[in-house]
Amino acid sequence: MAKLLLGKEVADALSEELKARVQQLEEQGITPTLAVVRVGENAGDLSYEKGAMKRAQQLGVQVRQVHLPEDTAAERLLETMDELNADAALHGVLLFRPLPEHLRSRESEICNRLDPQKDVDGMTDLSAAGVYTGQALGFPPCTAAACMEILDHYGIETVGKKVVVMGRSLVIGRPAALMLMHRHATITVIHTRTEDPMAYIPYADILICAAGVKDLITAGMVRPGQVVLDVSMNYDPDKITSGGRGGMVGDCAFSQVEPIVGAITPVPGGVGAVTNTVLMKHVIQAAQQA
Amino acid sequence: MAKLLLGKEVADALSEELKARVQQLEEQGITPTLAVVRVGENAGDLSYEKGAMKRAQQLGVQVRQVHLPEDTAAERLLETMDELNADAALHGVLLFRPLPEHLRSRESEICNRLDPQKDVDGMTDLSAAGVYTGQALGFPPCTAAACMEILDHYGIETVGKKVVVMGRSLVIGRPAALMLMHRHATITVIHTRTEDPMAYIPYADILICAAGVKDLITAGMVRPGQVVLDVSMNYDPDKITSGGRGGMVGDCAFSQVEPIVGAITPVPGGVGAVTNTVLMKHVIQAAQQA
Repeated sequence: MAKLLLGKEVADALSEELKARVQQLEEQGITPTLAVVRVGENAGDLSYEKGAMKRAQQLGVQVRQVHLPEDTAAERLLETMDELNADAALHGVLLFRPLPEHLRSRESEICNRLDPQKDVDGMTDLSAAGVYTGQALGFPPCTAAACMEILDHYGIETVGKKVVVMGRSLVIGRPAALMLMHRHATITVIHTRTEDPMAYIPYADILICAAGVKDLITAGMVRPGQVVLDVSMNYDPDKITSGGRGGMVGDCAFSQVEPIVGAITPVPGGVGAVTNTVLMKHVIQAAQQA
Repeated sequence: MAKLLLGKEVADALSEELKARVQQLEEQGITPTLAVVRVGENAGDLSYEKGAMKRAQQLGVQVRQVHLPEDTAAERLLETMDELNADAALHGVLLFRPLPEHLRSRESEICNRLDPQKDVDGMTDLSAAGVYTGQALGFPPCTAAACMEILDHYGIETVGKKVVVMGRSLVIGRPAALMLMHRHATITVIHTRTEDPMAYIPYADILICAAGVKDLITAGMVRPGQVVLDVSMNYDPDKITSGGRGGMVGDCAFSQVEPIVGAITPVPGGVGAVTNTVLMKHVIQAAQQA
Protein backbone atom coordinates (compact mmCIF):
# COMPACT_ATOMS: atom_id res chain seq x y z
CA MET A 1 0.00 0.00 0.00
CA ALA A 2 1.62 3.23 -1.14
CA LYS A 3 1.46 6.48 0.75
CA LEU A 4 -1.00 8.62 -1.19
CA LEU A 5 0.42 12.00 -2.16
CA LEU A 6 -2.76 14.04 -1.98
CA GLY A 7 -2.94 17.27 -3.92
CA LYS A 8 -5.50 18.71 -1.53
CA GLU A 9 -3.14 18.33 1.45
CA VAL A 10 -0.37 20.09 -0.45
CA ALA A 11 -2.66 22.83 -1.74
CA ASP A 12 -4.17 23.42 1.71
CA ALA A 13 -0.78 23.74 3.40
CA LEU A 14 0.48 26.03 0.65
CA SER A 15 -2.70 28.10 0.86
CA GLU A 16 -2.14 28.81 4.56
CA GLU A 17 1.32 30.15 3.75
CA LEU A 18 -0.03 32.18 0.85
CA LYS A 19 -2.84 33.78 2.89
CA ALA A 20 -0.23 35.24 5.22
CA ARG A 21 1.67 36.67 2.26
CA VAL A 22 -1.51 38.17 0.79
CA GLN A 23 -2.24 39.82 4.13
CA GLN A 24 1.22 41.39 4.19
CA LEU A 25 0.61 42.73 0.69
CA GLU A 26 -2.82 44.09 1.68
CA GLU A 27 -1.16 45.97 4.56
CA GLN A 28 0.95 47.71 1.92
CA GLY A 29 -2.21 48.50 -0.07
CA ILE A 30 -1.49 45.87 -2.74
CA THR A 31 -4.06 43.32 -3.92
CA PRO A 32 -2.35 40.57 -5.91
CA THR A 33 -4.17 40.47 -9.23
CA LEU A 34 -4.27 37.94 -12.04
CA ALA A 35 -5.68 38.38 -15.53
CA VAL A 36 -7.07 35.22 -17.11
CA VAL A 37 -7.11 35.60 -20.88
CA ARG A 38 -9.32 33.15 -22.73
CA VAL A 39 -9.90 33.14 -26.49
CA GLY A 40 -13.05 31.14 -27.28
CA GLU A 41 -14.94 28.66 -25.12
CA ASN A 42 -12.81 25.52 -24.81
CA ALA A 43 -14.40 23.26 -22.16
CA GLY A 44 -11.07 22.41 -20.49
CA ASP A 45 -10.17 26.10 -20.24
CA LEU A 46 -13.57 26.94 -18.73
CA SER A 47 -13.15 24.23 -16.11
CA TYR A 48 -9.61 25.35 -15.19
CA GLU A 49 -10.75 28.98 -15.04
CA LYS A 50 -13.59 28.10 -12.67
CA GLY A 51 -11.19 26.27 -10.33
CA ALA A 52 -8.71 29.13 -10.45
CA MET A 53 -11.44 31.70 -9.66
CA LYS A 54 -12.47 29.70 -6.61
CA ARG A 55 -8.92 29.28 -5.36
CA ALA A 56 -8.17 32.98 -5.94
CA GLN A 57 -11.21 33.98 -3.90
CA GLN A 58 -10.12 31.76 -1.00
CA LEU A 59 -6.69 33.38 -0.97
CA GLY A 60 -7.66 36.99 -1.57
CA VAL A 61 -6.20 37.15 -5.07
CA GLN A 62 -8.23 39.28 -7.46
CA VAL A 63 -8.98 37.86 -10.91
CA ARG A 64 -9.82 39.80 -14.03
CA GLN A 65 -11.43 37.71 -16.71
CA VAL A 66 -10.49 38.78 -20.21
CA HIS A 67 -12.72 36.86 -22.59
CA LEU A 68 -12.16 37.29 -26.29
CA PRO A 69 -14.22 35.78 -29.10
CA GLU A 70 -12.98 32.65 -30.90
CA ASP A 71 -12.26 34.68 -34.08
CA THR A 72 -10.06 37.29 -32.35
CA ALA A 73 -7.27 38.55 -34.64
CA ALA A 74 -3.62 38.15 -33.64
CA GLU A 75 -3.14 41.93 -33.62
CA ARG A 76 -6.00 42.34 -31.14
CA LEU A 77 -4.46 39.74 -28.83
CA LEU A 78 -1.06 41.44 -29.06
CA GLU A 79 -2.73 44.74 -28.10
CA THR A 80 -4.36 43.00 -25.15
CA MET A 81 -0.95 41.79 -24.00
CA ASP A 82 0.43 45.33 -24.29
CA GLU A 83 -2.44 46.69 -22.20
CA LEU A 84 -1.91 44.04 -19.52
CA ASN A 85 1.84 44.71 -19.48
CA ALA A 86 1.25 48.44 -19.01
CA ASP A 87 -1.21 47.99 -16.14
CA ALA A 88 0.79 48.33 -12.91
CA ALA A 89 -2.13 47.08 -10.78
CA LEU A 90 -1.94 43.72 -12.53
CA HIS A 91 0.73 41.22 -11.42
CA GLY A 92 0.20 38.07 -13.44
CA VAL A 93 -1.33 36.91 -16.72
CA LEU A 94 -2.56 33.43 -17.63
CA LEU A 95 -3.26 32.89 -21.32
CA PHE A 96 -5.02 29.65 -22.18
CA ARG A 97 -3.31 27.61 -24.86
CA PRO A 98 -3.30 26.14 -27.36
CA LEU A 99 -4.84 29.18 -29.03
CA PRO A 100 -7.52 28.70 -31.72
CA GLU A 101 -6.21 27.32 -34.99
CA HIS A 102 -5.99 30.66 -36.86
CA LEU A 103 -3.67 32.07 -34.17
CA ARG A 104 -1.40 29.03 -33.94
CA SER A 105 1.30 30.32 -36.34
CA ARG A 106 1.73 33.43 -34.20
CA GLU A 107 1.41 31.76 -30.80
CA SER A 108 5.09 32.20 -29.93
CA GLU A 109 5.00 35.92 -30.82
CA ILE A 110 1.83 36.39 -28.74
CA CYS A 111 3.22 34.52 -25.72
CA ASN A 112 6.49 36.43 -25.83
CA ARG A 113 4.70 39.77 -25.94
CA LEU A 114 3.95 39.27 -22.25
CA ASP A 115 6.31 40.87 -19.73
CA PRO A 116 8.22 37.91 -18.20
CA GLN A 117 7.70 39.46 -14.75
CA LYS A 118 3.96 38.75 -15.22
CA ASP A 119 4.45 35.38 -16.88
CA VAL A 120 3.03 33.31 -14.00
CA ASP A 121 2.56 30.14 -16.08
CA GLY A 122 5.96 30.15 -17.79
CA MET A 123 5.05 30.66 -21.44
CA THR A 124 7.74 33.20 -22.46
CA ASP A 125 11.23 32.41 -23.70
CA LEU A 126 12.73 34.23 -20.73
CA SER A 127 10.78 32.04 -18.29
CA ALA A 128 12.09 29.02 -20.22
CA ALA A 129 15.65 30.37 -19.89
CA GLY A 130 15.10 30.64 -16.14
CA VAL A 131 14.04 26.99 -15.87
CA TYR A 132 17.01 25.88 -17.96
CA THR A 133 19.68 28.00 -16.28
CA GLY A 134 18.22 27.77 -12.78
CA GLN A 135 17.70 31.51 -12.39
CA ALA A 136 14.60 33.38 -11.25
CA LEU A 137 13.68 34.81 -14.66
CA GLY A 138 9.92 34.80 -15.10
CA PHE A 139 8.22 31.68 -13.68
CA PRO A 140 8.21 27.93 -14.39
CA PRO A 141 5.08 26.28 -15.81
CA CYS A 142 2.61 25.67 -12.96
CA THR A 143 2.24 21.91 -13.47
CA ALA A 144 6.00 21.28 -13.24
CA ALA A 145 6.20 23.59 -10.21
CA ALA A 146 3.28 21.65 -8.65
CA CYS A 147 5.41 18.49 -8.78
CA MET A 148 8.12 20.28 -6.80
CA GLU A 149 5.54 21.46 -4.22
CA ILE A 150 4.39 17.87 -3.70
CA LEU A 151 7.96 16.64 -3.21
CA ASP A 152 8.65 19.50 -0.78
CA HIS A 153 5.44 19.04 1.18
CA TYR A 154 6.05 15.34 1.76
CA GLY A 155 9.77 15.85 2.42
CA ILE A 156 10.86 13.63 -0.46
CA GLU A 157 14.62 13.83 -0.95
CA THR A 158 15.84 14.54 -4.49
CA VAL A 159 19.61 14.98 -4.00
CA GLY A 160 21.44 12.18 -5.81
CA LYS A 161 18.19 10.36 -6.59
CA LYS A 162 17.51 8.68 -9.91
CA VAL A 163 14.61 10.43 -11.62
CA VAL A 164 12.97 9.15 -14.78
CA VAL A 165 10.79 11.71 -16.55
CA MET A 166 8.38 10.33 -19.14
CA GLY A 167 7.75 13.01 -21.72
CA ARG A 168 9.72 16.01 -22.97
CA SER A 169 7.04 18.68 -23.40
CA LEU A 170 7.71 22.30 -22.49
CA VAL A 171 4.82 22.37 -20.00
CA ILE A 172 5.80 19.36 -17.94
CA GLY A 173 8.51 16.86 -18.98
CA ARG A 174 11.33 19.24 -19.82
CA PRO A 175 10.82 21.74 -16.95
CA ALA A 176 10.32 18.94 -14.40
CA ALA A 177 13.57 17.32 -15.56
CA LEU A 178 15.55 20.57 -15.34
CA MET A 179 14.02 21.61 -12.00
CA LEU A 180 14.92 18.20 -10.55
CA MET A 181 18.43 18.47 -11.97
CA HIS A 182 18.80 21.81 -10.16
CA ARG A 183 17.72 19.89 -7.03
CA HIS A 184 20.69 17.59 -7.68
CA ALA A 185 18.75 14.59 -8.96
CA THR A 186 20.17 12.43 -11.76
CA ILE A 187 17.66 12.78 -14.57
CA THR A 188 16.79 10.54 -17.50
CA VAL A 189 14.20 11.80 -19.98
CA ILE A 190 12.35 9.12 -21.93
CA HIS A 191 9.97 9.95 -24.76
CA THR A 192 8.20 8.64 -27.86
CA ARG A 193 11.49 8.04 -29.68
CA THR A 194 13.15 6.16 -26.80
CA GLU A 195 13.99 2.55 -27.55
CA ASP A 196 12.44 0.19 -24.98
CA PRO A 197 11.27 3.05 -22.72
CA MET A 198 9.69 0.80 -20.11
CA ALA A 199 13.10 -0.72 -19.34
CA TYR A 200 13.99 2.54 -17.55
CA ILE A 201 11.05 2.50 -15.14
CA PRO A 202 12.41 0.00 -12.56
CA TYR A 203 15.56 2.10 -12.05
CA ALA A 204 13.73 5.26 -11.02
CA ASP A 205 13.71 6.38 -7.40
CA ILE A 206 11.25 9.06 -8.51
CA LEU A 207 9.09 8.63 -11.60
CA ILE A 208 7.36 11.57 -13.29
CA CYS A 209 4.65 10.26 -15.63
CA ALA A 210 3.59 12.66 -18.34
CA ALA A 211 3.19 10.36 -21.31
CA GLY A 212 -0.57 10.76 -21.68
CA VAL A 213 -1.18 7.03 -22.21
CA LYS A 214 -3.48 5.19 -19.82
CA ASP A 215 -2.38 1.85 -18.33
CA LEU A 216 1.17 2.44 -19.59
CA ILE A 217 2.79 1.62 -16.25
CA THR A 218 1.81 -1.77 -14.87
CA ALA A 219 2.71 -4.02 -11.94
CA GLY A 220 5.72 -5.69 -13.54
CA MET A 221 7.57 -2.40 -14.08
CA VAL A 222 7.58 -0.87 -10.62
CA ARG A 223 9.22 -1.79 -7.32
CA PRO A 224 8.82 -1.04 -3.62
CA GLY A 225 10.00 2.36 -2.42
CA GLN A 226 9.50 4.24 -5.67
CA VAL A 227 7.81 7.65 -5.63
CA VAL A 228 5.42 8.14 -8.55
CA LEU A 229 4.03 11.52 -9.61
CA ASP A 230 1.43 10.79 -12.27
CA VAL A 231 0.79 14.07 -14.06
CA SER A 232 -1.26 12.76 -16.99
CA MET A 233 -5.02 13.20 -17.31
CA ASN A 234 -6.37 10.54 -19.67
CA TYR A 235 -10.05 9.81 -20.17
CA ASP A 236 -11.04 6.22 -19.42
CA PRO A 237 -14.56 5.40 -20.59
CA ASP A 238 -14.63 2.34 -18.33
CA LYS A 239 -13.58 3.94 -15.06
CA ILE A 240 -16.25 3.63 -12.39
CA THR A 241 -16.76 6.84 -10.41
CA SER A 242 -19.44 8.12 -8.07
CA GLY A 243 -20.96 9.78 -11.13
CA GLY A 244 -21.19 6.51 -13.04
CA ARG A 245 -18.99 5.13 -15.79
CA GLY A 246 -16.18 7.19 -17.35
CA GLY A 247 -13.50 9.31 -15.68
CA MET A 248 -9.92 10.55 -15.62
CA VAL A 249 -6.91 8.30 -15.07
CA GLY A 250 -3.15 8.83 -15.21
CA ASP A 251 -0.44 6.84 -17.02
CA CYS A 252 -0.32 4.26 -14.21
CA ALA A 253 -2.69 1.33 -13.93
CA PHE A 254 -3.38 2.59 -10.39
CA SER A 255 -4.84 -0.60 -8.94
CA GLN A 256 -1.71 -2.50 -10.01
CA VAL A 257 0.94 0.11 -9.20
CA GLU A 258 -0.33 1.51 -5.92
CA PRO A 259 0.05 -1.72 -3.91
CA ILE A 260 3.72 -1.98 -4.87
CA VAL A 261 5.35 1.48 -4.85
CA GLY A 262 6.25 3.61 -1.85
CA ALA A 263 4.20 6.70 -2.69
CA ILE A 264 1.94 7.80 -5.54
CA THR A 265 -0.30 10.69 -6.57
CA PRO A 266 -3.86 9.62 -7.39
CA VAL A 267 -5.54 10.84 -10.60
CA PRO A 268 -7.57 12.94 -10.10
CA GLY A 269 -6.61 14.44 -6.76
CA GLY A 270 -2.85 14.53 -7.21
CA VAL A 271 -0.70 16.96 -9.19
CA GLY A 272 -3.72 18.56 -10.90
CA ALA A 273 -5.15 19.57 -7.53
CA VAL A 274 -2.05 21.65 -6.75
CA THR A 275 -1.63 23.48 -10.05
CA ASN A 276 -4.01 26.38 -9.51
CA THR A 277 -2.63 27.03 -6.02
CA VAL A 278 0.85 27.23 -7.56
CA LEU A 279 -0.54 29.70 -10.08
CA MET A 280 -1.70 31.88 -7.17
CA LYS A 281 1.70 31.49 -5.51
CA HIS A 282 3.30 32.88 -8.65
CA VAL A 283 0.86 35.82 -8.78
CA ILE A 284 1.59 36.63 -5.13
CA GLN A 285 5.32 36.35 -5.75
CA ALA A 286 5.00 38.64 -8.79
CA ALA A 287 3.09 41.15 -6.64
CA GLN A 288 5.81 41.01 -3.98
CA GLN A 289 8.51 41.57 -6.61
CA ALA A 290 6.66 44.39 -8.42
CA MET B 1 40.86 -0.19 -31.83
CA ALA B 2 38.34 2.60 -31.92
CA LYS B 3 37.67 4.79 -34.92
CA LEU B 4 39.29 8.13 -34.08
CA LEU B 5 36.90 11.06 -34.40
CA LEU B 6 39.36 13.70 -35.51
CA GLY B 7 38.49 17.33 -34.96
CA LYS B 8 40.67 18.42 -37.86
CA GLU B 9 38.71 16.28 -40.33
CA VAL B 10 35.44 17.75 -39.09
CA ALA B 11 36.77 21.31 -39.06
CA ASP B 12 38.24 20.96 -42.56
CA ALA B 13 35.00 19.62 -44.04
CA LEU B 14 32.97 22.32 -42.30
CA SER B 15 35.45 24.96 -43.48
CA GLU B 16 34.91 24.00 -47.12
CA GLU B 17 31.18 24.50 -46.69
CA LEU B 18 31.71 27.78 -44.85
CA LYS B 19 34.05 29.22 -47.51
CA ALA B 20 31.28 28.86 -50.06
CA ARG B 21 28.88 30.69 -47.77
CA VAL B 22 31.39 33.49 -47.17
CA GLN B 23 31.80 33.88 -50.93
CA GLN B 24 28.04 34.21 -51.36
CA LEU B 25 28.03 36.92 -48.70
CA GLU B 26 30.96 38.73 -50.34
CA GLU B 27 29.02 38.79 -53.60
CA GLN B 28 26.35 40.71 -51.71
CA GLY B 29 29.00 43.08 -50.36
CA ILE B 30 28.92 41.59 -46.86
CA THR B 31 32.04 40.55 -44.94
CA PRO B 32 31.10 38.39 -41.96
CA THR B 33 32.66 40.10 -38.96
CA LEU B 34 33.32 38.98 -35.40
CA ALA B 35 34.33 41.11 -32.44
CA VAL B 36 36.47 39.33 -29.85
CA VAL B 37 36.17 41.11 -26.52
CA ARG B 38 38.88 40.29 -24.01
CA VAL B 39 39.22 41.88 -20.57
CA GLY B 40 42.73 41.35 -19.25
CA GLU B 41 45.39 38.88 -20.40
CA ASN B 42 44.27 35.38 -19.38
CA ALA B 43 46.60 32.85 -21.05
CA GLY B 44 43.77 30.52 -22.08
CA ASP B 45 41.87 33.41 -23.67
CA LEU B 46 44.97 34.55 -25.57
CA SER B 47 45.50 31.05 -26.92
CA TYR B 48 41.86 30.65 -28.00
CA GLU B 49 41.92 34.11 -29.59
CA LYS B 50 45.02 33.26 -31.60
CA GLY B 51 43.39 30.07 -32.92
CA ALA B 52 40.19 31.92 -33.76
CA MET B 53 42.11 34.65 -35.63
CA LYS B 54 43.87 32.05 -37.74
CA ARG B 55 40.67 30.16 -38.53
CA ALA B 56 38.86 33.41 -39.36
CA GLN B 57 41.58 34.41 -41.81
CA GLN B 58 41.36 31.04 -43.58
CA LEU B 59 37.63 31.46 -44.01
CA GLY B 60 37.46 35.13 -44.91
CA VAL B 61 35.81 36.18 -41.65
CA GLN B 62 36.98 39.55 -40.38
CA VAL B 63 37.90 39.83 -36.70
CA ARG B 64 37.97 42.98 -34.60
CA GLN B 65 39.95 42.63 -31.43
CA VAL B 66 38.53 44.62 -28.55
CA HIS B 67 41.07 44.49 -25.74
CA LEU B 68 40.19 46.11 -22.46
CA PRO B 69 42.42 46.44 -19.39
CA GLU B 70 42.02 44.03 -16.47
CA ASP B 71 40.54 46.81 -14.28
CA THR B 72 37.80 47.81 -16.75
CA ALA B 73 34.64 48.97 -14.97
CA ALA B 74 31.32 47.19 -15.52
CA GLU B 75 29.77 50.36 -16.96
CA ARG B 76 32.54 50.61 -19.57
CA LEU B 77 31.95 46.99 -20.61
CA LEU B 78 28.19 47.59 -20.86
CA GLU B 79 28.89 50.61 -23.10
CA THR B 80 31.15 48.44 -25.25
CA MET B 81 28.30 45.95 -25.66
CA ASP B 82 25.94 48.76 -26.66
CA GLU B 83 28.41 50.00 -29.27
CA LEU B 84 28.87 46.50 -30.69
CA ASN B 85 25.08 45.97 -30.77
CA ALA B 86 24.60 49.24 -32.66
CA ASP B 87 27.24 48.46 -35.29
CA ALA B 88 25.43 46.95 -38.28
CA ALA B 89 28.70 45.89 -39.93
CA LEU B 90 29.40 43.56 -37.03
CA HIS B 91 27.64 40.18 -36.94
CA GLY B 92 28.92 38.32 -33.90
CA VAL B 93 30.53 39.00 -30.53
CA LEU B 94 32.65 36.65 -28.44
CA LEU B 95 33.25 37.79 -24.87
CA PHE B 96 35.83 35.77 -22.94
CA ARG B 97 34.61 34.49 -19.60
CA PRO B 98 34.87 34.17 -16.73
CA LEU B 99 35.38 37.92 -16.43
CA PRO B 100 37.91 39.30 -13.92
CA GLU B 101 36.84 38.93 -10.28
CA HIS B 102 35.56 42.51 -9.81
CA LEU B 103 33.09 42.07 -12.72
CA ARG B 104 31.82 38.64 -11.65
CA SER B 105 28.73 39.90 -9.77
CA ARG B 106 27.54 41.71 -12.91
CA GLU B 107 28.55 39.03 -15.41
CA SER B 108 24.95 38.02 -16.17
CA GLU B 109 23.92 41.65 -16.79
CA ILE B 110 26.94 42.21 -19.05
CA CYS B 111 26.33 39.01 -21.05
CA ASN B 112 22.66 39.79 -21.49
CA ARG B 113 23.39 43.27 -22.77
CA LEU B 114 24.48 41.65 -26.04
CA ASP B 115 21.92 41.40 -28.83
CA PRO B 116 21.05 37.66 -28.99
CA GLN B 117 21.30 37.86 -32.80
CA LYS B 118 25.04 38.51 -32.31
CA ASP B 119 25.45 36.03 -29.46
CA VAL B 120 27.58 33.53 -31.41
CA ASP B 121 28.81 31.68 -28.31
CA GLY B 122 25.45 31.34 -26.54
CA MET B 123 25.95 33.45 -23.43
CA THR B 124 22.59 35.30 -23.30
CA ASP B 125 19.41 34.07 -21.65
CA LEU B 126 17.63 34.10 -25.00
CA SER B 127 20.27 31.81 -26.53
CA ALA B 128 19.77 29.52 -23.51
CA ALA B 129 16.01 29.55 -24.13
CA GLY B 130 16.66 28.52 -27.73
CA VAL B 131 18.75 25.53 -26.66
CA TYR B 132 16.11 24.49 -24.13
CA THR B 133 13.05 24.95 -26.33
CA GLY B 134 14.72 23.83 -29.56
CA GLN B 135 14.14 27.11 -31.38
CA ALA B 136 16.64 29.21 -33.32
CA LEU B 137 16.91 32.04 -30.77
CA GLY B 138 20.49 33.26 -30.56
CA PHE B 139 23.10 30.47 -30.81
CA PRO B 140 24.15 27.46 -28.71
CA PRO B 141 27.54 27.46 -26.95
CA CYS B 142 30.23 26.55 -29.50
CA THR B 143 31.64 23.55 -27.62
CA ALA B 144 28.25 21.82 -27.37
CA ALA B 145 27.58 22.64 -31.03
CA ALA B 146 31.00 21.20 -31.90
CA CYS B 147 29.88 17.84 -30.45
CA MET B 148 26.89 17.88 -32.82
CA GLU B 149 29.17 18.69 -35.78
CA ILE B 150 31.33 15.66 -34.97
CA LEU B 151 28.31 13.36 -34.73
CA ASP B 152 26.98 14.75 -38.03
CA HIS B 153 30.29 14.53 -39.85
CA TYR B 154 30.80 10.88 -38.95
CA GLY B 155 27.14 10.00 -39.53
CA ILE B 156 26.58 8.82 -35.97
CA GLU B 157 22.90 8.11 -35.37
CA THR B 158 21.30 9.73 -32.31
CA VAL B 159 17.60 8.85 -32.71
CA GLY B 160 16.55 6.53 -29.86
CA LYS B 161 20.14 6.18 -28.64
CA LYS B 162 21.08 6.17 -24.98
CA VAL B 163 23.24 9.19 -24.24
CA VAL B 164 24.99 9.74 -20.94
CA VAL B 165 26.23 13.29 -20.40
CA MET B 166 28.77 13.76 -17.63
CA GLY B 167 28.45 17.29 -16.30
CA ARG B 168 25.63 19.84 -16.18
CA SER B 169 27.40 23.12 -16.95
CA LEU B 170 25.78 25.76 -19.14
CA VAL B 171 28.66 25.70 -21.62
CA ILE B 172 28.70 21.97 -22.33
CA GLY B 173 26.77 19.41 -20.24
CA ARG B 174 23.35 21.00 -20.22
CA PRO B 175 23.29 22.26 -23.85
CA ALA B 176 24.72 18.97 -25.17
CA ALA B 177 22.00 17.04 -23.29
CA LEU B 178 19.20 19.23 -24.62
CA MET B 179 20.56 19.32 -28.18
CA LEU B 180 20.77 15.53 -28.17
CA MET B 181 17.24 15.29 -26.76
CA HIS B 182 16.05 17.42 -29.69
CA ARG B 183 17.81 14.87 -31.91
CA HIS B 184 15.60 12.23 -30.24
CA ALA B 185 18.24 10.64 -28.04
CA THR B 186 17.35 9.41 -24.55
CA ILE B 187 19.46 11.50 -22.24
CA THR B 188 20.77 10.90 -18.73
CA VAL B 189 22.75 13.69 -17.07
CA ILE B 190 25.17 12.63 -14.35
CA HIS B 191 27.04 15.12 -12.20
CA THR B 192 28.92 15.68 -8.95
CA ARG B 193 25.85 14.88 -6.86
CA THR B 194 24.98 11.65 -8.71
CA GLU B 195 25.17 8.52 -6.58
CA ASP B 196 27.47 5.92 -8.15
CA PRO B 197 27.92 7.90 -11.39
CA MET B 198 30.22 5.39 -13.03
CA ALA B 199 27.45 2.78 -12.96
CA TYR B 200 25.77 4.70 -15.80
CA ILE B 201 28.73 4.59 -18.18
CA PRO B 202 28.30 1.02 -19.53
CA TYR B 203 24.71 1.77 -20.61
CA ALA B 204 25.60 4.68 -22.87
CA ASP B 205 25.53 4.29 -26.64
CA ILE B 206 27.04 7.78 -26.79
CA LEU B 207 29.05 9.19 -23.89
CA ILE B 208 29.74 12.92 -23.55
CA CYS B 209 32.59 13.44 -21.06
CA ALA B 210 32.75 16.89 -19.52
CA ALA B 211 33.61 16.11 -15.93
CA GLY B 212 37.05 17.70 -15.96
CA VAL B 213 38.69 14.79 -14.10
CA LYS B 214 41.57 12.93 -15.73
CA ASP B 215 41.57 9.11 -15.76
CA LEU B 216 37.93 9.09 -14.62
CA ILE B 217 36.82 6.62 -17.30
CA THR B 218 38.79 3.40 -17.33
CA ALA B 219 38.75 0.06 -19.13
CA GLY B 220 36.26 -1.66 -16.84
CA MET B 221 33.52 0.88 -17.50
CA VAL B 222 33.28 0.91 -21.27
CA ARG B 223 32.15 -1.61 -23.86
CA PRO B 224 32.55 -2.26 -27.59
CA GLY B 225 30.51 -0.07 -29.90
CA GLN B 226 30.26 2.96 -27.67
CA VAL B 227 30.89 6.43 -29.10
CA VAL B 228 32.87 8.65 -26.73
CA LEU B 229 33.17 12.42 -27.13
CA ASP B 230 35.70 13.56 -24.55
CA VAL B 231 35.27 17.31 -24.17
CA SER B 232 37.43 17.86 -21.10
CA MET B 233 40.87 19.43 -21.18
CA ASN B 234 42.79 18.40 -18.08
CA TYR B 235 46.49 19.01 -17.56
CA ASP B 236 48.51 15.86 -16.93
CA PRO B 237 52.07 16.58 -15.75
CA ASP B 238 53.13 13.03 -16.65
CA LYS B 239 51.85 12.93 -20.22
CA ILE B 240 54.66 12.37 -22.73
CA THR B 241 54.33 14.57 -25.81
CA SER B 242 56.67 15.58 -28.63
CA GLY B 243 57.48 18.65 -26.51
CA GLY B 244 58.50 16.59 -23.51
CA ARG B 245 56.63 15.76 -20.34
CA GLY B 246 53.26 17.37 -19.50
CA GLY B 247 50.19 17.84 -21.70
CA MET B 248 46.42 17.89 -22.03
CA VAL B 249 44.22 14.83 -21.50
CA GLY B 250 40.47 14.27 -21.33
CA ASP B 251 38.35 12.43 -18.76
CA CYS B 252 39.13 9.06 -20.36
CA ALA B 253 42.26 7.06 -19.64
CA PHE B 254 42.77 7.03 -23.43
CA SER B 255 45.18 4.09 -23.63
CA GLN B 256 42.66 1.93 -21.74
CA VAL B 257 39.42 3.13 -23.33
CA GLU B 258 40.43 3.50 -26.98
CA PRO B 259 41.14 -0.23 -27.57
CA ILE B 260 37.62 -1.15 -26.37
CA VAL B 261 35.07 1.42 -27.60
CA GLY B 262 33.78 1.88 -31.13
CA ALA B 263 34.80 5.50 -31.65
CA ILE B 264 36.47 8.22 -29.59
CA THR B 265 37.73 11.78 -29.86
CA PRO B 266 41.40 12.21 -28.92
CA VAL B 267 42.45 14.97 -26.51
CA PRO B 268 43.81 17.22 -27.88
CA GLY B 269 42.65 16.98 -31.48
CA GLY B 270 38.99 16.15 -30.87
CA VAL B 271 36.13 18.43 -29.84
CA GLY B 272 38.44 21.35 -29.05
CA ALA B 273 39.72 21.37 -32.62
CA VAL B 274 36.21 22.02 -33.96
CA THR B 275 35.10 24.75 -31.58
CA ASN B 276 36.58 27.78 -33.33
CA THR B 277 35.27 26.61 -36.70
CA VAL B 278 31.79 26.37 -35.17
CA LEU B 279 32.26 29.90 -33.86
CA MET B 280 32.92 31.05 -37.45
CA LYS B 281 29.88 29.09 -38.64
CA HIS B 282 27.76 31.04 -36.18
CA VAL B 283 29.24 34.37 -37.31
CA ILE B 284 28.53 33.49 -40.94
CA GLN B 285 25.00 32.40 -40.04
CA ALA B 286 24.47 35.67 -38.14
CA ALA B 287 25.69 37.60 -41.20
CA GLN B 288 23.28 35.68 -43.43
CA GLN B 289 20.38 36.38 -41.06
CA ALA B 290 21.22 40.08 -40.56
